[in-house]
Amino acid sequence: MTSNLTTPRADGRASDELREVRLTRGWLDHAEGSVLVEFGSTRVLCVASFTAGVPRWRKGSGQGWVTAEYAMLPRSTNTRSDRESVKGRIGGRTHEISRLIGRSLRAVIDVSALGENTIVLDCDVLQADGGTRTAAITGAYVALADAVAWGQAQGAIATGRPVLTDSVAAVSVGIVGGRPVLDLPYVEDVNAETDMNVVVTGSGGFVEVQGTAEGKPFQRSELDELLDLAVLGTARLTELQRAALAEPLRARP
Amino acid sequence: MTSNLTTPRADGRASDELREVRLTRGWLDHAEGSVLVEFGSTRVLCVASFTAGVPRWRKGSGQGWVTAEYAMLPRSTNTRSDRESVKGRIGGRTHEISRLIGRSLRAVIDVSALGENTIVLDCDVLQADGGTRTAAITGAYVALADAVAWGQAQGAIATGRPVLTDSVAAVSVGIVGGRPVLDLPYVEDVNAETDMNVVVTGSGGFVEVQGTAEGKPFQRSELDELLDLAVLGTARLTELQRAALAEPLRARP
Amino acid sequence: MTSNLTTPRADGRASDELREVRLTRGWLDHAEGSVLVEFGSTRVLCVASFTAGVPRWRKGSGQGWVTAEYAMLPRSTNTRSDRESVKGRIGGRTHEISRLIGRSLRAVIDVSALGENTIVLDCDVLQADGGTRTAAITGAYVALADAVAWGQAQGAIATGRPVLTDSVAAVSVGIVGGRPVLDLPYVEDVNAETDMNVVVTGSGGFVEVQGTAEGKPFQRSELDELLDLAVLGTARLTELQRAALAEPLRARP
Amino acid sequence: MTSNLTTPRADGRASDELREVRLTRGWLDHAEGSVLVEFGSTRVLCVASFTAGVPRWRKGSGQGWVTAEYAMLPRSTNTRSDRESVKGRIGGRTHEISRLIGRSLRAVIDVSALGENTIVLDCDVLQADGGTRTAAITGAYVALADAVAWGQAQGAIATGRPVLTDSVAAVSVGIVGGRPVLDLPYVEDVNAETDMNVVVTGSGGFVEVQGTAEGKPFQRSELDELLDLAVLGTARLTELQRAALAEPLRARP
Amino acid sequence: MTSNLTTPRADGRASDELREVRLTRGWLDHAEGSVLVEFGSTRVLCVASFTAGVPRWRKGSGQGWVTAEYAMLPRSTNTRSDRESVKGRIGGRTHEISRLIGRSLRAVIDVSALGENTIVLDCDVLQADGGTRTAAITGAYVALADAVAWGQAQGAIATGRPVLTDSVAAVSVGIVGGRPVLDLPYVEDVNAETDMNVVVTGSGGFVEVQGTAEGKPFQRSELDELLDLAVLGTARLTELQRAALAEPLRARP
Amino acid sequence: MTSNLTTPRADGRASDELREVRLTRGWLDHAEGSVLVEFGSTRVLCVASFTAGVPRWRKGSGQGWVTAEYAMLPRSTNTRSDRESVKGRIGGRTHEISRLIGRSLRAVIDVSALGENTIVLDCDVLQADGGTRTAAITGAYVALADAVAWGQAQGAIATGRPVLTDSVAAVSVGIVGGRPVLDLPYVEDVNAETDMNVVVTGSGGFVEVQGTAEGKPFQRSELDELLDLAVLGTARLTELQRAALAEPLRARP
Repeated sequence: MTSNLTTPRADGRASDELREVRLTRGWLDHAEGSVLVEFGSTRVLCVASFTAGVPRWRKGSGQGWVTAEYAMLPRSTNTRSDRESVKGRIGGRTHEISRLIGRSLRAVIDVSALGENTIVLDCDVLQADGGTRTAAITGAYVALADAVAWGQAQGAIATGRPVLTDSVAAVSVGIVGGRPVLDLPYVEDVNAETDMNVVVTGSGGFVEVQGTAEGKPFQRSELDELLDLAVLGTARLTELQRAALAEPLRARP
Repeated sequence: MTSNLTTPRADGRASDELREVRLTRGWLDHAEGSVLVEFGSTRVLCVASFTAGVPRWRKGSGQGWVTAEYAMLPRSTNTRSDRESVKGRIGGRTHEISRLIGRSLRAVIDVSALGENTIVLDCDVLQADGGTRTAAITGAYVALADAVAWGQAQGAIATGRPVLTDSVAAVSVGIVGGRPVLDLPYVEDVNAETDMNVVVTGSGGFVEVQGTAEGKPFQRSELDELLDLAVLGTARLTELQRAALAEPLRARP
Repeated sequence: MTSNLTTPRADGRASDELREVRLTRGWLDHAEGSVLVEFGSTRVLCVASFTAGVPRWRKGSGQGWVTAEYAMLPRSTNTRSDRESVKGRIGGRTHEISRLIGRSLRAVIDVSALGENTIVLDCDVLQADGGTRTAAITGAYVALADAVAWGQAQGAIATGRPVLTDSVAAVSVGIVGGRPVLDLPYVEDVNAETDMNVVVTGSGGFVEVQGTAEGKPFQRSELDELLDLAVLGTARLTELQRAALAEPLRARP
Repeated sequence: MTSNLTTPRADGRASDELREVRLTRGWLDHAEGSVLVEFGSTRVLCVASFTAGVPRWRKGSGQGWVTAEYAMLPRSTNTRSDRESVKGRIGGRTHEISRLIGRSLRAVIDVSALGENTIVLDCDVLQADGGTRTAAITGAYVALADAVAWGQAQGAIATGRPVLTDSVAAVSVGIVGGRPVLDLPYVEDVNAETDMNVVVTGSGGFVEVQGTAEGKPFQRSELDELLDLAVLGTARLTELQRAALAEPLRARP
Repeated sequence: MTSNLTTPRADGRASDELREVRLTRGWLDHAEGSVLVEFGSTRVLCVASFTAGVPRWRKGSGQGWVTAEYAMLPRSTNTRSDRESVKGRIGGRTHEISRLIGRSLRAVIDVSALGENTIVLDCDVLQADGGTRTAAITGAYVALADAVAWGQAQGAIATGRPVLTDSVAAVSVGIVGGRPVLDLPYVEDVNAETDMNVVVTGSGGFVEVQGTAEGKPFQRSELDELLDLAVLGTARLTELQRAALAEPLRARP
Repeated sequence: MTSNLTTPRADGRASDELREVRLTRGWLDHAEGSVLVEFGSTRVLCVASFTAGVPRWRKGSGQGWVTAEYAMLPRSTNTRSDRESVKGRIGGRTHEISRLIGRSLRAVIDVSALGENTIVLDCDVLQADGGTRTAAITGAYVALADAVAWGQAQGAIATGRPVLTDSVAAVSVGIVGGRPVLDLPYVEDVNAETDMNVVVTGSGGFVEVQGTAEGKPFQRSELDELLDLAVLGTARLTELQRAALAEPLRARP
């Protein structure tokens, strides 16, 4: 396999280049945290809802709970899909991604410092163009940070200890046409031989690595190259998250 | 009952004044019609999906089909609601509003001119502040018009006859503190003694009148005043729809 | 539009004439209230079940709760429909009508006087020939009155205050062949250009007005005529309810 | 065990005496067969719907299909039960009885003579006082006979051969207070040590025998006595079915 | 009908001969009772789970609860069936058999002696060749006995009184080719004119008798012969249960 | 982190040592492929069902289809879980694992060589002690191989080309007490800081890599060590698969 990281792709990007990423905080008026995250044409609305109390099985533990639900609007994709509410059941892919987002966020939260409060992250895909789960994790972290700050400002979080122990971001990488590339849009995703989603903390630790051979199996050397790209991409996303959170949070005009 | 239509309301509006209404066409990249409609803080994404063919029971009729699905994002409201997909069933209110939107749009479409094509309108409430169903109908009409134009431009609609026979818009009216008012935000809606949703065509015919006494029953004279306000409000919405559709449809920047 | 209220209809009635209405109280042996209501061939069994206690969200409020469930037997209609229990979900129309009946009855009950008791109204359509929802409301009110009287006789309702603040009845009106008519059977209902259900209290206040243009939109003058007919019809139903309740309640032979 | 078949029971009947049984044909206006069957206070509406065609798996076989669905109205019993449509699933008991009724009717029908037609029997319990499944089978046979006659009169059943090869009826028997008794009402049913439902054809053959020890196991001699009673009771029901079907079928007044 | 009990059947057995029956205790490592029961090629895994406490409706009664759930693996049969978990609902047959197993076991347990403990019997069919419900009952009794012994050894069952008042076993009988036979494999079951499942206690009392005419109705004399065979077969199963329980319970190698 | 690969674990194994693995082919009589796979106390029944034809969306493609369903018996675990069929919905974990097994097997099958046939793999966990999904993949491959051989022997697979392009096996690895270990039983799994499932082909290519930080994030060096262990373990499983398939397939005694 020849991997030439400098040749441009269909959309003109280099192999190790992210799409344009936008993080718009305060996208809703009422939610404790709400972020519209865009990875190119992929747009996900990430909303954090903070409530006092925890699910029954966690009561009295002194620990909080963070969970996530992912969903796609029926026409977020090129052709319309049936609503899962109408079908009466959640599909396997939806379940799988919701669980992934929840685990990723729980990796950077100190549930004892959160106290017996619950934060639910709703990640609704308004438009899908590849990488919806990684955009969701990246945006959800920012919404979570805003909800935690809200809880602290309200006094709902009692401890002075930091609730967030690190930040977390995610990116997709894959092998397309024999070449490892970063942040795949839909057109690359459907043609990828290998597809991998990687979740990394701000300090560079791995939270999740999920690689799948879509066509032929991949080799150890390819896996190594993909991990290099993912580390590079999540580091860049970490910077964008920091920059977004450094801005004052204003109401939407 | 004293109705003083000139005293301002909590948000400063006169009794017969709409909230600020915005209709943003082309909000999504792929859909045949997509409109973000805003009635003040209420924001509904209305998306029209055009597909060749009709449901089985309509095949061979030469007639098209238009239907609608309404849903709320879990945190569109002040406190988070459970997802209907997770609960595994659609609630009664959701069903009711989906049916209302579908009937309203079918009132202004000539299904024979549409031919054996289907247009599905997805109306997803991103943020709710009262009047979500009336905003949905008003925005969905614009998305429908764009999808019809798309079908004609593509040649998917064969006939040269007009497919849309009229336009349609909707508004809520109600009696709040003994006074009939137009276009109720949430804070008025929960305190309304009577709540009414009215769907009116561009040429002034009634499509739907749904009035409910929340507290004490209402009198014929009150009903008349509410209908007057609704006619006034929908006429203004009709103008805004025309203005929006008069603009060229551009891709979102 | 020419409206000639004196010409007979297919079944020989004048435009402003109800079908034969029968209210048979005590149709079941055990229920606290049970009424077989007939509007011509439409037959609905309305059963009121009185139980001590209220749903969890209402506990400690001192207030009672009244709710309703509507359903159709599978062969109540001309052709058999699948059971909703077998399909595993309640349809939108069923939900909508159940909610309408519940709201209508709650408009005439003083939940504080009822105390923390629950009355559930089951309205099961045994045979459908148009107007099932309006028959259901009209019959359910009588069953409700019997259940309230039962609660008072048993001492389960503690207060001496009246629990029912008014009576309530409902009727359908519509425009058929250009003419406004009262109380539509199925054959008129399917041909109606406009269909309206109106719920009115015994003292003449409106509880619900639900009008739908099935074909072309309706005009304000038509709406006014329909409301006149509905007021006339519900006044007549109110008399029949009073007459039925004036009889002593006897066990069925 | 002393079994004294002559001492009267709580309701005054002898051990081998049926409750008053009524079979009212033509209880609905539209159905091809409809019978209100009453075993004392137990009232079941049995409705036969005849349609041309058979389920997919039977197409082209030249054979018809007969099936049944049993259900109870929520307040047919002393205390209200939740609707299975609202719960979203059919309970085990409902399934079991629906299957029993279907099997019992199929035992007396010649599906080849029926031709590729389907008859669905809906047995809805309006009021339950024990023996609802046996009343349902007994009434459903009469509704089935009317639907078959309708099919023959309409020419929908092509063959001249008899479609019904026999009649079928059912009764409950049980051991109450150590004594075998026939046709148990609810008050006996809940106290029975052994409960048995027996389905027998008009010519005396057994179709189903379902006996259950509710408390202590039963002995062979007791089983024999119960079978004797069941044979006696079903023979009497067969006579009543014949008498009912001998009457001309008239529209309900 | 000529019944010749000595002629061999397709598998060489006499009419009154059981298939080879094996009861393997301790088939799982963790369950309080677990038995692999085999009736010829039919293999059912019966697992008893003992837990302290009872369902809410039984709390404070001082009585325990025993219940059962039956299911078939998708490829236990000759052709694969869809999973009930995937279909989202339990079929009628599954419900019916689960209820039968539960009733059968409750007939031999003294719930007061059990105390407020629950034992759930899971009967999963690994391979089906006729008689799965009777094998399940026969095996489940042995698993139940082991779970009761476990509860007594652990001190979770407080009383010294016997918890099991008797043993229970079940067998199928039927009329095949005009001849009554015992313990039908699939190939006989599908051809049986009459099919009967009989549940009998160790001391010879009847718990359940469920006979169904699959083709033509059966006569009283045939019923008597089938009951004779069932008594004979269950007596033999009772011996096998005793022998199995007389062995020491060892961990699986 | 100190990783000492030679110190024994709780069950006496070295860090790089598999549990005892057993692959019993032909465990069922009728299925085209059936394997009981055991990884220590973990026991999964893997059954391959071969049927002619493919799902509708694949018809006419000339290509076959392989899919998988995973499930756990309710008492396969230490404490009993509710059945998913009773709950009426499949959980997220079940969905996720079913999809993983299906993808893993499809990586080694040439669907064109298979022709328009479907093979469904049912993997039912009889007893769970960690690593159920990896055992399922490893066993399912062997069952798949038997089903393919059956299809070729029957002539149902027309082409002479090899249908299986490689073999596939899977193993879990994880970091427990700071040490990377191979093939985790339940007791290690619940205490693992990092948990990874790796699916590898017989020729050493990666099909899936799924690593999750349960506690603190893991470093690149740890990830490398885990991948080394997984490659070693799957190579050993590949040998065991080959040995099992080299044996003649015999009916179970």
